[in-house]
Amino acid sequence: MSAHEPKLRRPEAYLAGLRDGREVWYQGERVDDVTTHPELGVAARHGALDFQLAHDPDYADLAVTDGYSTFYALPRSAADLRRRSKLIETSTTHGATLVVLLKEIGTDALFALHRVTHGTDAYERVEAFYRHCRAGDLALAVAQTDVKGDRSLGPSGQSDPDLYVRISERRPDGVVVRGAKVHTSCTPNVDEIIVIPTRALRGDEQDWAVAFAVPVAPQGVKLVCSDYLHGAQDEWVHPISSRHKMVETLTIFEDVFVPWERVFLAGDTERAGKLALTFVEYHRLTAVSYKLPLVDTLVGLAALLAEANGIARASHVRDKLTWLIGYAETVRALTHAACDRARVDEATGIAYPDPLTTNLAKWTFARDYYQAVEHVIDLAGGLLVTGVGGSDWESPELRPYLEKYLAGAVPAAERLPLFNLASELCARAYAGYQGVLAIHAEGSLEAEKLLIYRSYDSAAALELARRLAGVEERE
Amino acid sequence: MSAHEPKLRRPEAYLAGLRDGREVWYQGERVDDVTTHPELGVAARHGALDFQLAHDPDYADLAVTDGYSTFYALPRSAADLRRRSKLIETSTTHGATLVVLLKEIGTDALFALHRVTHGTDAYERVEAFYRHCRAGDLALAVAQTDVKGDRSLGPSGQSDPDLYVRISERRPDGVVVRGAKVHTSCTPNVDEIIVIPTRALRGDEQDWAVAFAVPVAPQGVKLVCSDYLHGAQDEWVHPISSRHKMVETLTIFEDVFVPWERVFLAGDTERAGKLALTFVEYHRLTAVSYKLPLVDTLVGLAALLAEANGIARASHVRDKLTWLIGYAETVRALTHAACDRARVDEATGIAYPDPLTTNLAKWTFARDYYQAVEHVIDLAGGLLVTGVGGSDWESPELRPYLEKYLAGAVPAAERLPLFNLASELCARAYAGYQGVLAIHAEGSLEAEKLLIYRSYDSAAALELARRLAGVEERE
Amino acid sequence: MSAHEPKLRRPEAYLAGLRDGREVWYQGERVDDVTTHPELGVAARHGALDFQLAHDPDYADLAVTDGYSTFYALPRSAADLRRRSKLIETSTTHGATLVVLLKEIGTDALFALHRVTHGTDAYERVEAFYRHCRAGDLALAVAQTDVKGDRSLGPSGQSDPDLYVRISERRPDGVVVRGAKVHTSCTPNVDEIIVIPTRALRGDEQDWAVAFAVPVAPQGVKLVCSDYLHGAQDEWVHPISSRHKMVETLTIFEDVFVPWERVFLAGDTERAGKLALTFVEYHRLTAVSYKLPLVDTLVGLAALLAEANGIARASHVRDKLTWLIGYAETVRALTHAACDRARVDEATGIAYPDPLTTNLAKWTFARDYYQAVEHVIDLAGGLLVTGVGGSDWESPELRPYLEKYLAGAVPAAERLPLFNLASELCARAYAGYQGVLAIHAEGSLEAEKLLIYRSYDSAAALELARRLAGVEERE
Amino acid sequence: MSAHEPKLRRPEAYLAGLRDGREVWYQGERVDDVTTHPELGVAARHGALDFQLAHDPDYADLAVTDGYSTFYALPRSAADLRRRSKLIETSTTHGATLVVLLKEIGTDALFALHRVTHGTDAYERVEAFYRHCRAGDLALAVAQTDVKGDRSLGPSGQSDPDLYVRISERRPDGVVVRGAKVHTSCTPNVDEIIVIPTRALRGDEQDWAVAFAVPVAPQGVKLVCSDYLHGAQDEWVHPISSRHKMVETLTIFEDVFVPWERVFLAGDTERAGKLALTFVEYHRLTAVSYKLPLVDTLVGLAALLAEANGIARASHVRDKLTWLIGYAETVRALTHAACDRARVDEATGIAYPDPLTTNLAKWTFARDYYQAVEHVIDLAGGLLVTGVGGSDWESPELRPYLEKYLAGAVPAAERLPLFNLASELCARAYAGYQGVLAIHAEGSLEAEKLLIYRSYDSAAALELARRLAGVEERE
Repeated sequence: MSAHEPKLRRPEAYLAGLRDGREVWYQGERVDDVTTHPELGVAARHGALDFQLAHDPDYADLAVTDGYSTFYALPRSAADLRRRSKLIETSTTHGATLVVLLKEIGTDALFALHRVTHGTDAYERVEAFYRHCRAGDLALAVAQTDVKGDRSLGPSGQSDPDLYVRISERRPDGVVVRGAKVHTSCTPNVDEIIVIPTRALRGDEQDWAVAFAVPVAPQGVKLVCSDYLHGAQDEWVHPISSRHKMVETLTIFEDVFVPWERVFLAGDTERAGKLALTFVEYHRLTAVSYKLPLVDTLVGLAALLAEANGIARASHVRDKLTWLIGYAETVRALTHAACDRARVDEATGIAYPDPLTTNLAKWTFARDYYQAVEHVIDLAGGLLVTGVGGSDWESPELRPYLEKYLAGAVPAAERLPLFNLASELCARAYAGYQGVLAIHAEGSLEAEKLLIYRSYDSAAALELARRLAGVEERE
Repeated sequence: MSAHEPKLRRPEAYLAGLRDGREVWYQGERVDDVTTHPELGVAARHGALDFQLAHDPDYADLAVTDGYSTFYALPRSAADLRRRSKLIETSTTHGATLVVLLKEIGTDALFALHRVTHGTDAYERVEAFYRHCRAGDLALAVAQTDVKGDRSLGPSGQSDPDLYVRISERRPDGVVVRGAKVHTSCTPNVDEIIVIPTRALRGDEQDWAVAFAVPVAPQGVKLVCSDYLHGAQDEWVHPISSRHKMVETLTIFEDVFVPWERVFLAGDTERAGKLALTFVEYHRLTAVSYKLPLVDTLVGLAALLAEANGIARASHVRDKLTWLIGYAETVRALTHAACDRARVDEATGIAYPDPLTTNLAKWTFARDYYQAVEHVIDLAGGLLVTGVGGSDWESPELRPYLEKYLAGAVPAAERLPLFNLASELCARAYAGYQGVLAIHAEGSLEAEKLLIYRSYDSAAALELARRLAGVEERE
Repeated sequence: MSAHEPKLRRPEAYLAGLRDGREVWYQGERVDDVTTHPELGVAARHGALDFQLAHDPDYADLAVTDGYSTFYALPRSAADLRRRSKLIETSTTHGATLVVLLKEIGTDALFALHRVTHGTDAYERVEAFYRHCRAGDLALAVAQTDVKGDRSLGPSGQSDPDLYVRISERRPDGVVVRGAKVHTSCTPNVDEIIVIPTRALRGDEQDWAVAFAVPVAPQGVKLVCSDYLHGAQDEWVHPISSRHKMVETLTIFEDVFVPWERVFLAGDTERAGKLALTFVEYHRLTAVSYKLPLVDTLVGLAALLAEANGIARASHVRDKLTWLIGYAETVRALTHAACDRARVDEATGIAYPDPLTTNLAKWTFARDYYQAVEHVIDLAGGLLVTGVGGSDWESPELRPYLEKYLAGAVPAAERLPLFNLASELCARAYAGYQGVLAIHAEGSLEAEKLLIYRSYDSAAALELARRLAGVEERE
Repeated sequence: MSAHEPKLRRPEAYLAGLRDGREVWYQGERVDDVTTHPELGVAARHGALDFQLAHDPDYADLAVTDGYSTFYALPRSAADLRRRSKLIETSTTHGATLVVLLKEIGTDALFALHRVTHGTDAYERVEAFYRHCRAGDLALAVAQTDVKGDRSLGPSGQSDPDLYVRISERRPDGVVVRGAKVHTSCTPNVDEIIVIPTRALRGDEQDWAVAFAVPVAPQGVKLVCSDYLHGAQDEWVHPISSRHKMVETLTIFEDVFVPWERVFLAGDTERAGKLALTFVEYHRLTAVSYKLPLVDTLVGLAALLAEANGIARASHVRDKLTWLIGYAETVRALTHAACDRARVDEATGIAYPDPLTTNLAKWTFARDYYQAVEHVIDLAGGLLVTGVGGSDWESPELRPYLEKYLAGAVPAAERLPLFNLASELCARAYAGYQGVLAIHAEGSLEAEKLLIYRSYDSAAALELARRLAGVEERE
């Protein structure tokens, strides 16, 4: 092995790297080893999928670029963005509708950091960190959303200045940071955390204009894991969440020291806002890319349920299936269009998806997600929440009754797994997880609408309307 | 005490009555005593609420009529229906958005049985059974939905005749029934099960035209409980479902003998269809009555979340709150109108709610339920699924961080319970339970639309349109 | 005849009263006599419907109260409001979906003036004017909406103070007013104009806090009529608008003198805002009452079109008809509920409809109106805009072809009038008139939402949500 | 000039060609010369736009291909379809939101005829006719929609066999056809009519399986024009329809003889259905291409109205503008994607747009069109239907008042034209024309949904759902 190895780590190497004394809390207890923990371990193994894929000959063309993970390839064209989008879609399909997100989000942030720091000293530090991550085939989390306190106030207006992560001390060798981020995905099972601002800042809010990277393990980084998906061990009724898991943390920085070589922004409020938005440009494309397996599953599942229930020929059923197809394929078409309409940042040569189309794709997905879920529920039936559990099915005393009475137009052994999948996707905790993510993750409905409004180039439409009305443009 | 006591049972008496050797299965195991079982016991205690209310001096006026439970009062007027609706709304409020349903659904069926059997021999048997239940202050389940097999076929077209409950043998002293029903609510903690047909039947499907009542305990009645809401013990994150529970069963009748005095329909296919629909007339009013606390909670919770997050003055937030208010109040106005427009069955003098308005209320509730949920999620934020658990909050090491960082415009100790309630109602398994019930329970969206179409008296609208178009009515 | 006659004028007397030298402009020309003008005369005769109805023995019970027009009866109860609503619905049915509005809107304003001026000197003047109008059986317009200029500014912020009607001079015997109102309905064919403020005012905007009444004829009142519905003479293709018309004016007050006895508000900014809102409370009930024949016609027409086209049994057709029924009947139920939940103003004993329910009814009507129109278009077909005209139908050379080729499941002579009615209601200028009125008349969608938000009593919902979350009310 | 000239006719030559004795009826009268008729002449001049564009140096690159009109270029690739789509969008922009359709629809039919007749004798006749049209730079109408009679019955089930156009006689030199089509656009001002079937046929309905072309003028072709847009001369209030017009006809074939060289289908029922669908594949792309200027105008106009009224910064206004942007840009993105995903017919090498995406684009446009209209109405205000007319504005006595009182945040001279445009697009007859076309032209909502359902390749989604549920594909 050369000094630069590993380029493409094996799953085992990735898992081994997570045993580094990181401070992880789960259900009120400090976790020793996240890879062997009964619940967090599921998340770690889910994360390992990204590494498996890169070593799978069937996917090497897609997942590997120039010997590195394709995720790390700086996009230069529409084709690069389409390929990246395809990779995200593919790895999420392996994740059974759950995004892996070990490198997706981190590289979104790295691309944005390249573009925003270009022309400043920090650019070289970003470059160096990028090469470090790529060479080490590292897994990255991005902590963006501050805890924010009272949303009607900005960072400097809060009763507690730590409600947005901030520089609490500037030292010759680096900065000390303090505060907390929420909704940080995958933190317990990544190598490094990239921290970026969450919003535009006022000119005097320089302490909050901070971006940096730290390994997960150092003193002062506390990860309080959400146990939201706790209790999904039964594989029969939780065909997805018993095997796949993503963990979000409250990520606390308690006076964490960051050396200058990992500080990418420190005081530049204008670039802070720009970084927040530029990251989002990439990250919403990531989002819609990884939503495609989810919406496809809803379409396929709805069709299978209709068939299993014997209602596939009913007119209202076709109408609902058609709506689902239209929904899924509109999101897909907009996602592809966002890539195809790529723009290239002149300074860095890095491509990015068309912001209007990206936000339109994300908004379309999010706005109609619950309608899609409702249609699947409609076609499935009440058994989603009144059905039997895995131990009932395993019981020799009950099984004959279940086989006899829960058959539809197909045998119970085939129909019930469809109900279980639908229950996971549309009713149980995992359904809520996907639903809340649809509405909030990678930007809320309102955030997406705002960017659609702002990204729209209105010149042609205004000119057309003026011409037809016969009025001149006002000075 | 008179010989006829108990008229109004105490909760303890009710619970004692459930220990009768009934055959109840939960998670693959036979349950000995449903009142002491760690999970089913929650449902039993939830059921006891109806008995508590009747003994609560604050509610006696509403809950007690002529010394009996008001639920058993045969409605004679619009005012009676409004009072019944109010009682259902009130008891569900005590059930924390979960209907109690111990007497609601059973009396819905009894009212329907009175009307449909009038003019037949069975009327006296219905009357006698009704007096028996009322005098004993009994709790009743109604098993209506057959397992149905292939939905594109009727009872007689199935590969297995038992896929709709049927008379397998007629004997001089009664009938033997065979088959299974699904979605039977509360069965493990009621006294008697009333069984009625689920759909219109063809003239030659007489074996399936059967209605009867049996105690829960006899030989051959097997209850396989859904464990859908299993695992909700943590009161902090499950403020509702840790304390309130309703259990649905797959209700199997394995050659159960029913004496003639409890048989209300046996072979009359026309009345079978009529009974299915007449029951639904009452039961959908029950449904919309018990949905009111749920929609009110969504409205109130959304407003509290907006305030806790500091976003209450944002324009889009007001818009969403207004939508929620409009939704809740439209359902309420239609529910009240359904009562106010009561009709009275001439033969029996029993009142029933206006079918058009009842179905309109139910459809309006169901059609927009997921939109309401989405709005609450929107106003709450991602913490619904990335938040911390009860043991985190209890941890002395973590609590200071949670209090510091999860405060909003109100302290964390006040904000987090709102999130927990919202998570239960909009994301976790209980949310799915309510959501699937919204779409399917007491009739699907399509069933409600069908009854709106059929119940509408089109004469005036057709006449008006014809007059304005200047065309004559066709012969 | 007594000195107090006429109590109930005959249509002829009403029309005669309109020949008084009023300054009416139509299509750039001064109109001599509005009753004989080829287009405005249609509106005058439409207005006469209200007088006909009062003399029609079939409607006397409804239309006449204590010898006066029922419109003038001050409502004292829910029953009074229901009766008033029924009268408005009935007269609009006679108006073929077009409200008559000769007394509806004026009495809405008179009721509001009674309540708002109670406790001030003006109350007696209101009373006197009310008795004058009732005794004379007068027709009344209400001019409320100011021209408003730049909507982002209030009256005092405009570049021209006249953009809201204002007192330009106070004199010992009265006030001089100046400014203009838009959207004033029926002005050319009423006897008196009541002028009221359009919005809440700041404390220093006293000149704009003015309400008064003037006859239509005096010097300085200029009525510039909209000719929007011009060109609808062909009765075959305009079955409604060739016979029924309402005219809106730009109503200009060019230094009009108003004697004190007709001034109801002059400088009281607080009452100005209250008057604007109180009027709206009544007027939105008027609105939803007169929308009922329109929505009923859409339902009936859709059903007739489906039948005429031979598509009545298609599943999607039933679905659309059901939606239309649900729409119409929800608006009706809410309208009735708004009356039934009447409140009574303590000071004056005058009843008013429940504001929340009234606004909910109006918003429901307005929000879904275009969906209703779209469904009717869907069921009708493209012939709505590609069909033939009345002279084609009259042509002996063409008629045989039209009868042969434009028959559907019914003969062309029956089918085409249905298309013509649908074209008027859903495509031609009259359709646009009804559509724009749906969105804007009697308050916009946003105005209705604002009042729903403000009228809602949130106490119970907040208390319920707090209780379920286990949090205390904040001080 | 070569003998084959004209390749690109001048507008004058086109108009001259329409004076050929064609039998055109308008308002019950036979029309002598459609180019000089006061109303039909507007349509002829609108049609001439396509010829102007081809001679305009600014558009020659787009509008001319190999010396012929680009419309006649057989598409071979995605790029060809994009270029064709762009040309349609461009010419419609010149038509002020009204499609010109002189060559668009005819070439849609010619492309379909090429593909469907390939492998039959008729292919050469199609080829010859295509070269004839292209060389002569002809204008073409397509008559597809039969009058259909009772829609619940097919051609052979009608009481009158002529309710679908049919072969009434087969002769050695050609066929005689009989029947009528509706909704034929532009017929009075084109050179040739292409007639194709409207639906799939049963095997025994051979007489109705007919496709052919005839010049407009021959004996027996009667055109009964719709006068729907009659009465739009005032340029001030009808800025579009006073200058632009499209005319639809009831197109009657009264025993018209068609020589074999113009017969493309005669008895082949299978190809009849295929031709109907293949035409639609192209024609729906044409449709969405020509809708783009319409939706863009709605967006631009809404923004200008908001600015003119001074409400552009209100939150609800931004929300509605954002919705409109999202609507327009989703339709555009799907239209482009339909081209980009072009498929190529192997036999002929002719490209066609992806059917799923094309139908999705069209359905998205149509489904939300009335919502878009409603938003523009909402932002404009009631003046759309209560405003003044052109003669009011011209009146020296009224103008000063209109300028004073109808100003907004911009002068009246600028604001009123915006209202006039909005009134045309959203309220007046032209609005209804566009609205009904949105719902019905080029296929109804239901037709589009049917093709979405049928075009969808469900294999991947079914496979994914099966894999996640753990069930095998059924044999």
